[in-house]
Amino acid sequence: MPVSTHPNAKPGIVVRTIPRTPMDRLTPLADYGVATVHEAIGRRGLMASSLRPIYPGASIAGPAVTVSVTPGDNTMIHVVVELCQAGDVLVISPTSPCEDGYFGDLFATALKARGVQGLIIDAGVRDIRTLHEMGFPVWSKAVCAQGTVKESLGNVNVPIVCGGHPVEPGDIIIADDDGVMVLARGRIDEALTAAKARAEKETRNRARFQAGEVGLDVYGMRETLARKGLVYVESLSDLEGN
Amino acid sequence: MPVSTHPNAKPGIVVRTIPRTPMDRLTPLADYGVATVHEAIGRRGLMASSLRPIYPGASIAGPAVTVSVTPGDNTMIHVVVELCQAGDVLVISPTSPCEDGYFGDLFATALKARGVQGLIIDAGVRDIRTLHEMGFPVWSKAVCAQGTVKESLGNVNVPIVCGGHPVEPGDIIIADDDGVMVLARGRIDEALTAAKARAEKETRNRARFQAGEVGLDVYGMRETLARKGLVYVESLSDLEGN
Amino acid sequence: MPVSTHPNAKPGIVVRTIPRTPMDRLTPLADYGVATVHEAIGRRGLMASSLRPIYPGASIAGPAVTVSVTPGDNTMIHVVVELCQAGDVLVISPTSPCEDGYFGDLFATALKARGVQGLIIDAGVRDIRTLHEMGFPVWSKAVCAQGTVKESLGNVNVPIVCGGHPVEPGDIIIADDDGVMVLARGRIDEALTAAKARAEKETRNRARFQAGEVGLDVYGMRETLARKGLVYVESLSDLEGN
Amino acid sequence: MPVSTHPNAKPGIVVRTIPRTPMDRLTPLADYGVATVHEAIGRRGLMASSLRPIYPGASIAGPAVTVSVTPGDNTMIHVVVELCQAGDVLVISPTSPCEDGYFGDLFATALKARGVQGLIIDAGVRDIRTLHEMGFPVWSKAVCAQGTVKESLGNVNVPIVCGGHPVEPGDIIIADDDGVMVLARGRIDEALTAAKARAEKETRNRARFQAGEVGLDVYGMRETLARKGLVYVESLSDLEGN
Amino acid sequence: MPVSTHPNAKPGIVVRTIPRTPMDRLTPLADYGVATVHEAIGRRGLMASSLRPIYPGASIAGPAVTVSVTPGDNTMIHVVVELCQAGDVLVISPTSPCEDGYFGDLFATALKARGVQGLIIDAGVRDIRTLHEMGFPVWSKAVCAQGTVKESLGNVNVPIVCGGHPVEPGDIIIADDDGVMVLARGRIDEALTAAKARAEKETRNRARFQAGEVGLDVYGMRETLARKGLVYVESLSDLEGN
Amino acid sequence: MPVSTHPNAKPGIVVRTIPRTPMDRLTPLADYGVATVHEAIGRRGLMASSLRPIYPGASIAGPAVTVSVTPGDNTMIHVVVELCQAGDVLVISPTSPCEDGYFGDLFATALKARGVQGLIIDAGVRDIRTLHEMGFPVWSKAVCAQGTVKESLGNVNVPIVCGGHPVEPGDIIIADDDGVMVLARGRIDEALTAAKARAEKETRNRARFQAGEVGLDVYGMRETLARKGLVYVESLSDLEGN
Repeated sequence: MPVSTHPNAKPGIVVRTIPRTPMDRLTPLADYGVATVHEAIGRRGLMASSLRPIYPGASIAGPAVTVSVTPGDNTMIHVVVELCQAGDVLVISPTSPCEDGYFGDLFATALKARGVQGLIIDAGVRDIRTLHEMGFPVWSKAVCAQGTVKESLGNVNVPIVCGGHPVEPGDIIIADDDGVMVLARGRIDEALTAAKARAEKETRNRARFQAGEVGLDVYGMRETLARKGLVYVESLSDLEGN
Repeated sequence: MPVSTHPNAKPGIVVRTIPRTPMDRLTPLADYGVATVHEAIGRRGLMASSLRPIYPGASIAGPAVTVSVTPGDNTMIHVVVELCQAGDVLVISPTSPCEDGYFGDLFATALKARGVQGLIIDAGVRDIRTLHEMGFPVWSKAVCAQGTVKESLGNVNVPIVCGGHPVEPGDIIIADDDGVMVLARGRIDEALTAAKARAEKETRNRARFQAGEVGLDVYGMRETLARKGLVYVESLSDLEGN
Repeated sequence: MPVSTHPNAKPGIVVRTIPRTPMDRLTPLADYGVATVHEAIGRRGLMASSLRPIYPGASIAGPAVTVSVTPGDNTMIHVVVELCQAGDVLVISPTSPCEDGYFGDLFATALKARGVQGLIIDAGVRDIRTLHEMGFPVWSKAVCAQGTVKESLGNVNVPIVCGGHPVEPGDIIIADDDGVMVLARGRIDEALTAAKARAEKETRNRARFQAGEVGLDVYGMRETLARKGLVYVESLSDLEGN
Repeated sequence: MPVSTHPNAKPGIVVRTIPRTPMDRLTPLADYGVATVHEAIGRRGLMASSLRPIYPGASIAGPAVTVSVTPGDNTMIHVVVELCQAGDVLVISPTSPCEDGYFGDLFATALKARGVQGLIIDAGVRDIRTLHEMGFPVWSKAVCAQGTVKESLGNVNVPIVCGGHPVEPGDIIIADDDGVMVLARGRIDEALTAAKARAEKETRNRARFQAGEVGLDVYGMRETLARKGLVYVESLSDLEGN
Repeated sequence: MPVSTHPNAKPGIVVRTIPRTPMDRLTPLADYGVATVHEAIGRRGLMASSLRPIYPGASIAGPAVTVSVTPGDNTMIHVVVELCQAGDVLVISPTSPCEDGYFGDLFATALKARGVQGLIIDAGVRDIRTLHEMGFPVWSKAVCAQGTVKESLGNVNVPIVCGGHPVEPGDIIIADDDGVMVLARGRIDEALTAAKARAEKETRNRARFQAGEVGLDVYGMRETLARKGLVYVESLSDLEGN
Repeated sequence: MPVSTHPNAKPGIVVRTIPRTPMDRLTPLADYGVATVHEAIGRRGLMASSLRPIYPGASIAGPAVTVSVTPGDNTMIHVVVELCQAGDVLVISPTSPCEDGYFGDLFATALKARGVQGLIIDAGVRDIRTLHEMGFPVWSKAVCAQGTVKESLGNVNVPIVCGGHPVEPGDIIIADDDGVMVLARGRIDEALTAAKARAEKETRNRARFQAGEVGLDVYGMRETLARKGLVYVESLSDLEGN
């Protein structure tokens, strides 16, 4: 697993600022949700499904503040806090697989005070009951009370890989009950347009499905399937003579 | 993993009808629950514990409509919808392990409009928040926003393996918070009788346990255990002289 | 995996009594919670994070009544019930990895009647909906309806390993949404004092974090980090010239 | 996981004989190998890839003698030995997941004395160095020195599920370095013919590939791919203007 | 996972000496092998089967020199080297799960120069080709080229848990192709006697099995099985009328 | 998991050429090996340790020809073959996790005819015995006989993620028994210099270790460790009075 994907990002380098996108352009993405935006944008940017929310119902979209930490060491999370701003989403990944509880309610308190929306961490988290009560959502690989040390330098706001997907600082993170995705900053307009179109189409289709239509007709699949050789028989016993 | 366990079921064959059992005979099985029916029937038919409900509290029993899909391809789910009837339980299994999100709220809308009770899928599912709001229960191996394509044929209503267990079309699926089981259609009467007996016995035993009795007496185990060599000592330090 | 870590504990030996600690000394440990006590005591005693609560919100602390069972066999759980007392926490571990549902609502009824607080089991559990309704918390490795037999002897109240950690009978088990830990009986006073101190410090720090301070200052990390070579640059593009 | 998929197979029932196929019809299947036969027969019957050989290079094909065991209990393996004949392949599956070492060199000695070809076990095996020296191949889920008990009845020669796939007694098991597959007895002729055809075609194609041709031409894929929209650009930078 | 199971072992404490057992008493244990000794001693002390040898064929027995390391940090392996003696077996466990490559050929060179027999590590190892060429056997959880840092203190020669099993410094480690076990120092005589008896019995039984006898007779199981209800039928079709 | 990390790489786009590096600059990297180059270059670029060689002893370094495939579909591997040149290393990743056997001996024949050095695939491979005999090395996540279809478009020579790490077409892949790493093309000189220096230092240090020196002196760690609080006691019993 990469320390960082940036060729010049030696451990210990902290980048203070990221490109940030106005929140009014991001909120609609959270409303559309991960499944819709991911489909709309051409199925790119999904993180691994091992990243799960610690409680259901949260839904966020915001610019990624990225942190690369060494296994069992949360030094760089202390470093990143003061660099966070309202609307940011913290994205933390260890340099090799680790499920320790890097993050708990004190960090959440400090981040919430800055307006940070939530955390994506490809490792463990703790104090999850308090985090739920505070309304600070986390998507993590594990829940684990194991604490971490403060010995080793990592990086802040350099490109990282989280949940199997590359993340650039300032990329847009969208997360809800279906998982977490990352959207390149330059594709926000495209995503808004495509997600809107898709959501509208889904609304129309939902009405048709509710009325009893099926996808074979809604999506016009019957002819293609017949050409591919789809065959109907009445019952399983009809197969015996095959 | 099997495409299908039926020797003549080449990909592309769709069986229109399954044998269906009147719902009034199935509802009691859902009430007894998976743990009770599974015990009562001699511990057969349990699917792997990796199949988990996307939300707690649902409990269903109904005939299996089976679907064999290729990895990352939901073509056959579109095919199956119009063949489903009220009370059915959809059972979907990929021909090789896959955690993609084959199924979301649009499918659920179409199936709910037909009275389908729920879905068992040995793969991934998405839109889980909406599915919860709709009250369409799903037992799946994963939650994953990754979409699927519509390119490859599979099968509908042929025998499949799901959660490590063979399922014949029309077999009875029972699912609740404890997991998912499959019951051969020909054993429903036996299951109803045995589950009723077991539930009644459990009710009697529950009263005895609540009154302070223990299984050693309730199940008459003391003598057997003594014969097998069970030995009591007062405290751990009594072992030192052994 | 060990049958038992005690050199003289052959299968079939049952130790009737464990050293018990007055509950008024244990309740505060449950209130502090696993993450705080575990940190306070020097990060020892955490069980593996694969042990998860079957429902959120429970929080317990009590003396461990230990049970070593063979795979797929719950004989010894029947044996242990009458040896349990109010406040106890049952800790069950199989002699080799197994996810069967060793434990269900009947056992919980018998144990609750004795005032047992809950169960830690490095295996499977079932009837989880009823257990939730009863308010009998369980931390387990799996939920599984698969039943067990009553054929093989194991041990009660000998040292075992559960969740990767050794447990002596009478050790204090603390469990909540963050996981499960075991505390040596002889360290309770130390744990109470240290957890109280830590909790108070956390309260003070929480206020500071809420007020906008960061860990770099609260924990005085800036100088050390600078000495280790932490370097700030303004933006990612500043790295290009490196 | 199923105890057994046969509705009347209560634990304790042993079926003495299985339908056996003359070895001269099976040996060619071992020579073609799992990958070729599995493709040729329409991709049915593959067991899960978690079943791996304990040493490379073995290759067998023979009728399945099936055994259903309880977790951590090898009673039924003792029962099955005298029912085995030359050429048989033993297939063992536990009623719930277990990695104990059910099988070691003594069993292998007894089976080899009867001409049994090898073992497929969806659990653990031990004495693997001796098994290798003896030339008794095993495909297993784990290597584990943990022994088992002799307490609980299971079944011999009833239908089981192994490696996620149903196996009928007498079905043909084919196993090599690529994994394990099961072939219905009634499909042997079809498999021999299809595998022969496929192997011959592969030989022809191998010569073409060796001569520098590519699958696009050998399989005539170019036109289809173009129609599906395959687009060639010269270098990655050509994508920028998209 | 425990930092250490010793109540007074704070990180940073190094114990210089362990109790060592003369090698002539240990070598026979390596010859008997893990499966035999583990059975003979009553099935205690087996580490998890996730610990696998990096190459087949090695077989060792020696006193455990224990090391507790933090995740991704090999400081304490540097500390332990000079404390090792001929015949020792190094046993390393991280304080939380980690698969980094803590150990490579340079460490092996230093240890081999001291006569250390091999390494058991519940984490990752690298340079495995060179280790094989050197004949320095390692049983590990992973092979991983990821290096580690030298920042955090751990412990040497305090009790640890490795592969799910507690290890006291000076305990005897036995490892071969079947896995790894730990034997309490005080049980060596018992183990030698019991393993010898078992090996002799196995030799006698092997001859009987080779001559065609079966376990049902060799172990006198027929009567017990009949009493438990074992039933023989001739063929599967005989079950239909059940 | 990403279809592709390139914003404009829609499925179906094939890039014909990659930047290639002369082999005489790459061969030394294979000789240094993954562990050495990875350390030397600052620990970046390591793929997940789940990618393992199908046989030991192979060692390669070459430019990455990248392929993004859909789950269970090897269309794009057919497309890529004619674009490969001598020395290339094929790197294949599915758009969502899949263990199907995408690749077998026919592909290897075609690629070997073009001088391709080997394959890295974050999925399954088959025909591994033949691949070994041919001397065509593969690092894969699984061995699996399950075949794939030819229905869906993917990408060739666009940026992908493989083994959790981003790979650009033309990046240098280095693979041996310790795993797989990716090196940015622009860092080859740095890698050659650093790996040479590291290898020379290791040779010097190896001699010192062989002569009995330890890392504490070779790396000058004693003072730092003492300052961090490392404490030596003579035996475990000395801890009791703590």
